[in-house]
Amino acid sequence: MAYELHYWPTIQGRGEFVRLALEAAGAPYVDVARGAEEAGMGTPALLRCMADKTLATPPFAPPFLRDGHVLIGQTAAILHYLAPTLKLVGRSEAARAWTQQIQLTIADVVAEAHDTHHPISSSLYYEDQKAEALRRAQVFCSERLPKYLPWFETIVTRNPAGPRHLVGGKLSYADLSLFQLIEGLRYAFPRATQAVLARTPGIVRLHGRVASLPRVAAYLRSERRLPFNEQGIFRCYPELDLP
Amino acid sequence: MAYELHYWPTIQGRGEFVRLALEAAGAPYVDVARGAEEAGMGTPALLRCMADKTLATPPFAPPFLRDGHVLIGQTAAILHYLAPTLKLVGRSEAARAWTQQIQLTIADVVAEAHDTHHPISSSLYYEDQKAEALRRAQVFCSERLPKYLPWFETIVTRNPAGPRHLVGGKLSYADLSLFQLIEGLRYAFPRATQAVLARTPGIVRLHGRVASLPRVAAYLRSERRLPFNEQGIFRCYPELDLP
Repeated sequence: MAYELHYWPTIQGRGEFVRLALEAAGAPYVDVARGAEEAGMGTPALLRCMADKTLATPPFAPPFLRDGHVLIGQTAAILHYLAPTLKLVGRSEAARAWTQQIQLTIADVVAEAHDTHHPISSSLYYEDQKAEALRRAQVFCSERLPKYLPWFETIVTRNPAGPRHLVGGKLSYADLSLFQLIEGLRYAFPRATQAVLARTPGIVRLHGRVASLPRVAAYLRSERRLPFNEQGIFRCYPELDLP
Repeated sequence: MAYELHYWPTIQGRGEFVRLALEAAGAPYVDVARGAEEAGMGTPALLRCMADKTLATPPFAPPFLRDGHVLIGQTAAILHYLAPTLKLVGRSEAARAWTQQIQLTIADVVAEAHDTHHPISSSLYYEDQKAEALRRAQVFCSERLPKYLPWFETIVTRNPAGPRHLVGGKLSYADLSLFQLIEGLRYAFPRATQAVLARTPGIVRLHGRVASLPRVAAYLRSERRLPFNEQGIFRCYPELDLP
């Protein structure tokens, strides 16, 4: 049976990390909120699920995934759950834990990237918090990116199985998520990101390898891949990038 | 062999979620950075570990845990790793995933609570971002807490095994972490927190039950439990609370 992915239909957002894992594994899934309302899908289906009072494990927010009778939310938890079946993580508990640790660090960067344009509140417009956004983005570009990205470079360089992957000798969801992180950062902060990536060739190569995986490349060319835009987490506001 | 917990020695911070799990389970552990420098411990030992170039899985930031040859960072990943051994999670994969999902949502609240006093940068003083803090804290108290805490109330109320625990019929690390979250919120935002908790009696009762567990109660009375202070995540700045 196909997985049901529930996420906002107009943005990549956090749902994209799950989409990439499903796509890279060739797993059957339905992107529920992007389906037709007449077919019982669309955003109303997502909202109905959120409001379902019979659920014992209701998600706090999208993305969430339904796999038969299992319903699971939180991006990193979804990936941790899916990965053994999708063969996107090593079999040992140690490999699963390390992959999860990397994913959680990626999630931290994603949250900070979001807060560059919404440092006060997600419920206010960017324009209503632009002064604060300019200050926060400056710190993100000049202090946080130069701290985070070299950590990923360090771990890919130190991988005992070689620098082709973050964990062991095979593709994991952490590789896919790092690809997506770099995609987003390049879109939102092209100058700040390039300045750091110039010093982290290992993760640039990893990004390129992921992009050229046949299933990933086909997905990126397809209509299933939403373009980045200014409603998502990674937004191209040139004033927030380094000059 | 005792676990080695590495965390900043003067604050509860994110390390406290790990300390609570170890304490509640009666597990042997060394709080490395709180040990004596003359004995090879203290903050220098933590920093040495962070800088160790031979580590294949270096942590990005404290807290991190050493268990023999395993080194693991990220609070939620540490708890997920420790919990089966400490008997602080159900045995099924479904129980482990749901407990992790709850922990990750707690982590989201913790990050937002931190950002009320540091909405621009952790590397600047509170006083240098106080105007932004006042704005962000107002949103946190009036919109975010009233959204987050009722979710925990919903899930404890819907627990098929009864409302004494968040997951199943036994204590899990999610219960301990929710206890700590409520402790911190009551310290930092007493008025805003009480306003919401008045409508969420299930999690108030859960908090009380956790506090009275013999090992937890003994820990809270001990010198091992650091007091809250204005260097940690939960800070009592009355101007950030609701009036």
